[in-house]
Amino acid sequence: MILEIAQIDVKPGMEADFEKGVAAAAPLFKRAKGCTSLSLQRSHEKPQRYRLFVGWATLENHTVDFRESADFQEWRRLVGSFFASPPEVEHVRETMKAF
Amino acid sequence: MILEIAQIDVKPGMEADFEKGVAAAAPLFKRAKGCTSLSLQRSHEKPQRYRLFVGWATLENHTVDFRESADFQEWRRLVGSFFASPPEVEHVRETMKAF
Repeated sequence: MILEIAQIDVKPGMEADFEKGVAAAAPLFKRAKGCTSLSLQRSHEKPQRYRLFVGWATLENHTVDFRESADFQEWRRLVGSFFASPPEVEHVRETMKAF
Repeated sequence: MILEIAQIDVKPGMEADFEKGVAAAAPLFKRAKGCTSLSLQRSHEKPQRYRLFVGWATLENHTVDFRESADFQEWRRLVGSFFASPPEVEHVRETMKAF
């Protein structure tokens, strides 16, 4: 299990459109191989900054299976025009869940 | 509900000590007012980088109640010496949970 954290800064005034685009794209992730969860987080300190949290069974389910799929192109078509800059993507693994 | 994301870069070779320190500090968070969850995430791309995910009922439960408590000093005593640089802290709110 791995969590993709995509930090996405959205163009000013495009926040609602971006959120709608993510909602519209949810089925793409739902059917993606190995995708286990999808949520959107919005920064308190920088309201134009979002983080997409995407759970994947394996790293390659994201970096290979999804990124090389037609659905990735569709994802970018739905939301890419709202990006203020290229997303910063990192993957993390949970090493401790205290409670 | 708000999620604190604390990005922590650890000094080289201190990863295991840092992880032990976080585990030892878990009770401090468990008893903190409004603290609802604690987990530690480790970066795949930068293995010296961790993210502490801490759920809080309100922003102030973190920024006021916890940071001004003696337990915050104890938290820093347990892990602060392993930090390579000051943590970068941001708070996010979930705007969408698709699945």
